[in-house]
Amino acid sequence: MEPTRRSFPTASQAFLAKRIFTAVGAEGTLIEDAALVLEDNQILYVGPAREVELAAVPVHDLGDVTVLPGLVDAHAHLTLPADKRNYEQVHQDPDEMLALVCVMNLRKHLAAGVTTIRDNGGRNRVTFTVRDAIRRGYLAGPRLLLCGRPVTQRLGHFYFCGGTADGPVEIRATVRALVAEGADHIKIMASGGATLGNLPYYAAYTVEEMKAAVDAAHDLGRLTTGHCRATQSMRYALEAGFDAIEHAEFLEADLSRKANLGAHHNLQGGQSVYDGRLAQQLLDAGTFISTTLQCGGYDTVVDLRHKKDTAGLTGQEQGQLDALQFYFEQKVGNFSQLIKDGFVGKLAISSDAGPFDTQFGRMDLGLCLGVEGGMTTGQALVAATRVGAELCGIADEVGTLEPGKLADFFAVDGDPTRNIADIANVTGVWADGRLRSHGPGVGVEWP
Amino acid sequence: MEPTRRSFPTASQAFLAKRIFTAVGAEGTLIEDAALVLEDNQILYVGPAREVELAAVPVHDLGDVTVLPGLVDAHAHLTLPADKRNYEQVHQDPDEMLALVCVMNLRKHLAAGVTTIRDNGGRNRVTFTVRDAIRRGYLAGPRLLLCGRPVTQRLGHFYFCGGTADGPVEIRATVRALVAEGADHIKIMASGGATLGNLPYYAAYTVEEMKAAVDAAHDLGRLTTGHCRATQSMRYALEAGFDAIEHAEFLEADLSRKANLGAHHNLQGGQSVYDGRLAQQLLDAGTFISTTLQCGGYDTVVDLRHKKDTAGLTGQEQGQLDALQFYFEQKVGNFSQLIKDGFVGKLAISSDAGPFDTQFGRMDLGLCLGVEGGMTTGQALVAATRVGAELCGIADEVGTLEPGKLADFFAVDGDPTRNIADIANVTGVWADGRLRSHGPGVGVEWP
Amino acid sequence: MEPTRRSFPTASQAFLAKRIFTAVGAEGTLIEDAALVLEDNQILYVGPAREVELAAVPVHDLGDVTVLPGLVDAHAHLTLPADKRNYEQVHQDPDEMLALVCVMNLRKHLAAGVTTIRDNGGRNRVTFTVRDAIRRGYLAGPRLLLCGRPVTQRLGHFYFCGGTADGPVEIRATVRALVAEGADHIKIMASGGATLGNLPYYAAYTVEEMKAAVDAAHDLGRLTTGHCRATQSMRYALEAGFDAIEHAEFLEADLSRKANLGAHHNLQGGQSVYDGRLAQQLLDAGTFISTTLQCGGYDTVVDLRHKKDTAGLTGQEQGQLDALQFYFEQKVGNFSQLIKDGFVGKLAISSDAGPFDTQFGRMDLGLCLGVEGGMTTGQALVAATRVGAELCGIADEVGTLEPGKLADFFAVDGDPTRNIADIANVTGVWADGRLRSHGPGVGVEWP
Amino acid sequence: MEPTRRSFPTASQAFLAKRIFTAVGAEGTLIEDAALVLEDNQILYVGPAREVELAAVPVHDLGDVTVLPGLVDAHAHLTLPADKRNYEQVHQDPDEMLALVCVMNLRKHLAAGVTTIRDNGGRNRVTFTVRDAIRRGYLAGPRLLLCGRPVTQRLGHFYFCGGTADGPVEIRATVRALVAEGADHIKIMASGGATLGNLPYYAAYTVEEMKAAVDAAHDLGRLTTGHCRATQSMRYALEAGFDAIEHAEFLEADLSRKANLGAHHNLQGGQSVYDGRLAQQLLDAGTFISTTLQCGGYDTVVDLRHKKDTAGLTGQEQGQLDALQFYFEQKVGNFSQLIKDGFVGKLAISSDAGPFDTQFGRMDLGLCLGVEGGMTTGQALVAATRVGAELCGIADEVGTLEPGKLADFFAVDGDPTRNIADIANVTGVWADGRLRSHGPGVGVEWP
Repeated sequence: MEPTRRSFPTASQAFLAKRIFTAVGAEGTLIEDAALVLEDNQILYVGPAREVELAAVPVHDLGDVTVLPGLVDAHAHLTLPADKRNYEQVHQDPDEMLALVCVMNLRKHLAAGVTTIRDNGGRNRVTFTVRDAIRRGYLAGPRLLLCGRPVTQRLGHFYFCGGTADGPVEIRATVRALVAEGADHIKIMASGGATLGNLPYYAAYTVEEMKAAVDAAHDLGRLTTGHCRATQSMRYALEAGFDAIEHAEFLEADLSRKANLGAHHNLQGGQSVYDGRLAQQLLDAGTFISTTLQCGGYDTVVDLRHKKDTAGLTGQEQGQLDALQFYFEQKVGNFSQLIKDGFVGKLAISSDAGPFDTQFGRMDLGLCLGVEGGMTTGQALVAATRVGAELCGIADEVGTLEPGKLADFFAVDGDPTRNIADIANVTGVWADGRLRSHGPGVGVEWP
Repeated sequence: MEPTRRSFPTASQAFLAKRIFTAVGAEGTLIEDAALVLEDNQILYVGPAREVELAAVPVHDLGDVTVLPGLVDAHAHLTLPADKRNYEQVHQDPDEMLALVCVMNLRKHLAAGVTTIRDNGGRNRVTFTVRDAIRRGYLAGPRLLLCGRPVTQRLGHFYFCGGTADGPVEIRATVRALVAEGADHIKIMASGGATLGNLPYYAAYTVEEMKAAVDAAHDLGRLTTGHCRATQSMRYALEAGFDAIEHAEFLEADLSRKANLGAHHNLQGGQSVYDGRLAQQLLDAGTFISTTLQCGGYDTVVDLRHKKDTAGLTGQEQGQLDALQFYFEQKVGNFSQLIKDGFVGKLAISSDAGPFDTQFGRMDLGLCLGVEGGMTTGQALVAATRVGAELCGIADEVGTLEPGKLADFFAVDGDPTRNIADIANVTGVWADGRLRSHGPGVGVEWP
Repeated sequence: MEPTRRSFPTASQAFLAKRIFTAVGAEGTLIEDAALVLEDNQILYVGPAREVELAAVPVHDLGDVTVLPGLVDAHAHLTLPADKRNYEQVHQDPDEMLALVCVMNLRKHLAAGVTTIRDNGGRNRVTFTVRDAIRRGYLAGPRLLLCGRPVTQRLGHFYFCGGTADGPVEIRATVRALVAEGADHIKIMASGGATLGNLPYYAAYTVEEMKAAVDAAHDLGRLTTGHCRATQSMRYALEAGFDAIEHAEFLEADLSRKANLGAHHNLQGGQSVYDGRLAQQLLDAGTFISTTLQCGGYDTVVDLRHKKDTAGLTGQEQGQLDALQFYFEQKVGNFSQLIKDGFVGKLAISSDAGPFDTQFGRMDLGLCLGVEGGMTTGQALVAATRVGAELCGIADEVGTLEPGKLADFFAVDGDPTRNIADIANVTGVWADGRLRSHGPGVGVEWP
Repeated sequence: MEPTRRSFPTASQAFLAKRIFTAVGAEGTLIEDAALVLEDNQILYVGPAREVELAAVPVHDLGDVTVLPGLVDAHAHLTLPADKRNYEQVHQDPDEMLALVCVMNLRKHLAAGVTTIRDNGGRNRVTFTVRDAIRRGYLAGPRLLLCGRPVTQRLGHFYFCGGTADGPVEIRATVRALVAEGADHIKIMASGGATLGNLPYYAAYTVEEMKAAVDAAHDLGRLTTGHCRATQSMRYALEAGFDAIEHAEFLEADLSRKANLGAHHNLQGGQSVYDGRLAQQLLDAGTFISTTLQCGGYDTVVDLRHKKDTAGLTGQEQGQLDALQFYFEQKVGNFSQLIKDGFVGKLAISSDAGPFDTQFGRMDLGLCLGVEGGMTTGQALVAATRVGAELCGIADEVGTLEPGKLADFFAVDGDPTRNIADIANVTGVWADGRLRSHGPGVGVEWP
């Protein structure tokens, strides 16, 4: 005798798929022959198709695909075109050009299954304006969480965005203005970066200044995160109470080389040294780490490897590839250490898409690196969905496929829990229960 | 044998009225068949007409009216036209238009019996200029107490007025400049408000910053008051030693709704929760509360109720009315709690006239809401006269009808101690002993 | 048998008066026992009361008064307070103070029977803003015709208003901007004036420049008028095709005194020499002259004569009175010559109220001087009503009491056609058929 | 015996359609059972399918549709959102928002079959930046011809775009700068428009100034066109040698209404009076007219008519509809006169999309009005394709489907040569031989 099937009288539509990955649990959960039932933009049911009665509901059978929660990219820069121009060159363009860069990037990420983007810094009010334009219906885009301008020291990393502030008073004032303009979180440039003249091996603010930023943000109900390439900046961030840190490259200055330093030396003068004690302290404090594995050249690594396998490399290209591979070995090595030290569950896989060569629409690269670094495929998928949502403070709404959550999801050919690279084979993307894209290279649906 | 009547050889004029309400005592005092004797702009005598000898004095018999002390509105915004444009739209107008708005508002309030206005914030130097114009005799108006620009954080509530200051040093400097320009008191925007991008559920300043404002003001002999919608801002104001707080809405953030916050979210995300312990602490500290009962939409409530009774409401209008009524139930509920907790005597009934729909010339609405909230008519009348004057620090000069006080008074048909709504039936307004208006809709007398 | 009375079924109200002066005809027309019948803001009938049937119409019997068309003051400066500060001192005040000066002046002029004012120059956009405020209902005021900023040479007369332009291209651009801002006419400072450093004995522009201003104005359907104290500027204005000229003082430089000239010499160095040939050319060209008889000190003459008759004058005061009387003898002398040369009918009596001591609300002074200069009382009254309206290009709407005109009128005790000074005894002022004032010193009715 | 078919060895693809409209000839030409053969982005063949050999070519059979040359909209404003905000409100938005408006508009127009847009004026460099973004591949869009900022007098029509210039020298300098920034043509605001304070009934420039603009443009190989609502501005444009004029509303000022003019009077004060002699002179001079039939409220007419037929109209809405219908009767009446006077062939049907309510993607409205005004369907289709291209000076590349032209075309269900409204039933749009859109409401293909 057949068991009674659950029915959903308020359902507006349902989807059938060979596989649904829910991102619930440490490794996520894969349901075979599954159904996803929606009421408008909310999920009513996720589970085996056989347990649900769908006779009265419009049903879309997606076939032999895997459906996953929309990716949550906890770190991207919508205003940056990833066209290998450096920051200084890109910011010769006017604000309206940066807004048009956003249009391209929103589309690429959405087509690749990313339904939530946390932007970690753009110039002036551009990202706020872009969000307003989406709200007005001028264009479609993923859900956006914005910091506006990152808070940075005089001529510090991303100073060209206009968020310069030194000293607790100015920092606090800057945070307040950002929140009034619409910031959902506050991004603090806690160490140097690839901006001309920066020193990524040092903290860029004092603990007192970082505390001022955190307090000002929390006083207005806003989360904080820090650009922390230097170990020192990670320590200060811990002390100041940051909710998350980005990059976590464990860089230290090589003090023996001070005499050689000049203005534009950010690629020399330091090294990456993993600090297990600091990792433990961050874990104890509940601090999230947003890993941005693919940034810093992995798109180029992929291109060069492809060229090596096909046309072959010049000597200069081989040298570039070697240097990049060394960099990513270190980076993935740190990531592996963090996993061993119990950090899975607090590590979000994010892209840092936008700068230099880091393309939007390639979250698959970070996921592959995550698996290369020791995560299971399930852990990696959770890291790019649920953990990202937790880091962003919106896990009550997105990040998993569960009843009550918003209906943000996408479908891929194949099964990423078996082969993580299948995550790139997108065949459809839905946000708020509405079809938004048929995948890369195809038009995004209209607002 | 008739008792000897008192005579006043220096009297310049006298007024007879069926009733004079003096505002002396907790409930005020109503004298029947009364006389008010003046020497120029000062009161010599208030009491039964039969006890005073007026043969040699010009006498105006006002007849069957109630004479009251001129109303003291402890919270208004003279530069704002109450024409349902939002702050950002109004401040597209140039300063000279804001000055002309003041002309209209001064007239409306004066005609409604308000002889003292404490302005709680306008752009640039406009309110100072308007007071100069009155002093030069260009136009007539009530007695003005001014703060000029409110002190506010970057992009904080009323930032468009130009009084932005963050950090103790800048705040102190700003207070000093305001006093030098003519400020009688200092208004601090201690929480967010209805300004675009504001978060009214949070404190806008740290305690240290608020203390700096209070100390700087007190150092120059000026009182302070704070815009405090958030409970948190009321706590900080208490700690910082504010002389008064405005609104006291006891708002708290609803932290579960973080994800939906964006740029323009000040109407969502919080709730009002009365805090009796905080109320007791404020009472112990002697802090005044300026209640601004009618602001936030009560003019519209009155209009919609009238339309409901006559033409009927559309569904949308009924929805608006329901939402507004819910808001005012909460607001009046808090007011009732304050009364129960012993706050009568420290609660001033003020209008917050100017923003959005809150008309000048309608102090009667606040008085009616005060009685609805549990005050006796006498308490309400005292709250809009003597307590207002005490809050403003000018109770030695105005606020009651007593010998030695300035001759600011007005006459109404009927008896507001029996029917509070009679306060709107103004038949004459005198300031400094001089007839200034015959009531609403009639011209104000010339300077 | 009684003749049939005319009836007006659409009449909204009617006024009866002992005398109505219509300003129709060269000397105007006085109707005894007259009626004025309105339909809303328009005149339906003016004539003997006995010829009209008013049984069904609300009738206001104004009694033994003279009703006249509202005065049209073709030359005033609403932003100037007439408080004996010079231009440079007044313009230390901010724009919002100038707007408040306008409020006072509008009231004074309206209370004195002036229902139309042509403003001939104020700073920035102040007069435009004041008109907007009247349209929005913030305050009541006469009908306003505005030029905004006068067009003037670098540091020329009224340069502080912001309308500086030299050369035909800049002048044309300035005229276009003024019209776009709302200018009804264009005022050109064609000679120097009392502005510090000016030379009133010379033309301030070339004919080519003046032509550019006139052409630019006419190209946009706007009339022109010129400040012309110098004879030379009157000649240029004639050649350039000005629609009107102001002042017409026939000043010539005394070239023998050039060596003594310095920067601040505008009270010396010239003389007034009537030029009958030029007058004839202007008459042939149909150019209006706006006479501004009372400006330049006549208020002070009146005050000093009064003081002489009561308290007596000091030697210094007598000297001042002598100098002023000499000035006005010349001025009235020129006026008399113009009358003799046939200029009645093209001479508007205007006040130039605002600068230095020339009070608003004293059009009676100019009318008395006009009669002193040789006009009949009827001619003078027509010069301050119908001719003013013709000069302003609005004679189809105001300036006389005739069917079809707008209902702008006022009532005075006495009969100004017998005693011109009776024009000051105002008992009521109506604009657009609505009571606006009970006369000087009494409040203007609300918008 | 079957005739030899033509073959195209270099063909890259071919399209079959039931009907192809070529826009060649006065009425255009309709080919049944037709083929369109391309080599990359160029047309090799258009004609009967039976005459061409396609065995070796990829063939897309579009079925029972009509294929037409991509529409050429000779007048649009990409930066304006058509959301019923006025110009002043829209331009409160920053440049980056205007760029995002362009993204929406490009998409709407492209989806409706418009493959070439001539923008007639936007703020600052926004339109140039948008074209750069398309060239960089950030987004897809129609072929763009740009003027950048329109040349306008001080506070003239569209002054907020930043192209203000008065006098021949400044105008010539402005034209040079625009060409250097990338202008393809020069737009001159030759009369006032709907900008606040404008007078559309008058010419805004002198003939000398207009000549300067034309000469400067022609000197740099650029065409000119003028915003000409006033008859006077059309006469001046003729004299100055404009290549085209826009709107051609034949407006004249109504001089009898001078008195009521104030700052914001552009909706009153004039009337439309057709001038056949002027039309003949323009025809003789070879001047194109860009008719912008649908602008000024036709979208609203359509909406109100629909509401009238369904829900019914309120009195206010009926009044609005009546006023708009009167306006469009006049407009279409002028259009009919121009046709009768031989102007077919020089009249381009353009949209003026962007301002107020004139939506992008609705060229069908203008085409319907063109037929209503007396054009045949063929003439109307030619007016929106070939004549538009001739007006824009690019008829050697686009505007018809002929060998050698660029492969810009679109397909519609039905046959617009029988029913002009079928033009809206777009099923596919190709630019440069590449599929760009599947029609309205569906995503535009990626760059």
